[in-house]
Amino acid sequence: MAKKAAVRPHRYTLRPVGVIKSDLKSRRNAPRQGAEGAPDAWLEVRPWASAALHLLSPGDEIIVITWFHHARRDVMQVRPRSDPRNPITGVFATRSPDRPNPLGLHPVVVRAIDGNRLRIGPIEAIDGTPVVDIKPVIS
Amino acid sequence: MAKKAAVRPHRYTLRPVGVIKSDLKSRRNAPRQGAEGAPDAWLEVRPWASAALHLLSPGDEIIVITWFHHARRDVMQVRPRSDPRNPITGVFATRSPDRPNPLGLHPVVVRAIDGNRLRIGPIEAIDGTPVVDIKPVIS
Repeated sequence: MAKKAAVRPHRYTLRPVGVIKSDLKSRRNAPRQGAEGAPDAWLEVRPWASAALHLLSPGDEIIVITWFHHARRDVMQVRPRSDPRNPITGVFATRSPDRPNPLGLHPVVVRAIDGNRLRIGPIEAIDGTPVVDIKPVIS
Repeated sequence: MAKKAAVRPHRYTLRPVGVIKSDLKSRRNAPRQGAEGAPDAWLEVRPWASAALHLLSPGDEIIVITWFHHARRDVMQVRPRSDPRNPITGVFATRSPDRPNPLGLHPVVVRAIDGNRLRIGPIEAIDGTPVVDIKPVIS
């Protein structure tokens, strides 16, 4: 029982560091992946996190991690791309936004930087999508 | 004011879907990146999420997303790799585990699958690190 008490709490809280501002307004119209004709967008970083942008530069390749705030978290299996010809697949083997923790990974290029706003793309995330982290691509 | 009331809540809750079981026991001894001599490890998926593994196979390249549960969340700038010769850099331009939302991205290969346990590697995450998502690499 002492052992059980030592188990760490099994919940963690994400505080968004920014938000996507995009012309893509709904999930229905969004491309499935950035490479499939997605537009550029703005990533507005919250003022409290803007110091974390220091030394990011136009031309950098980064991975933007989003939170799919419209996703369903109780979905464990899907047919990829909602295509009935695809087999039922566990969401960990797909990029479905519906998954237990609906995190999105978006490799993009930094086009420009204007204060705490990054012009990035191409990115299929819809307008209003929260951003929870930004990482450099390490090749 | 009606507009302000419509703003969505700015917190999201992560529920770990699994945990890393590794011979790496402390952050001090962990390599900085998987490519720098990290070992293989087990990823134990929680029973409630195991259906999401369906159709994952040995040989698959996946990205494991972890939560650095020992990280500091109030750090916005670091000297990369703790090297005093490196310039002060915003954490969004580094892979520092210390960052507002301490998510880790680990590209690994699935070596073997045993029920809800995946043998994966190489991975620099230490023993006990929570896993919050698993995604296929899309090339």
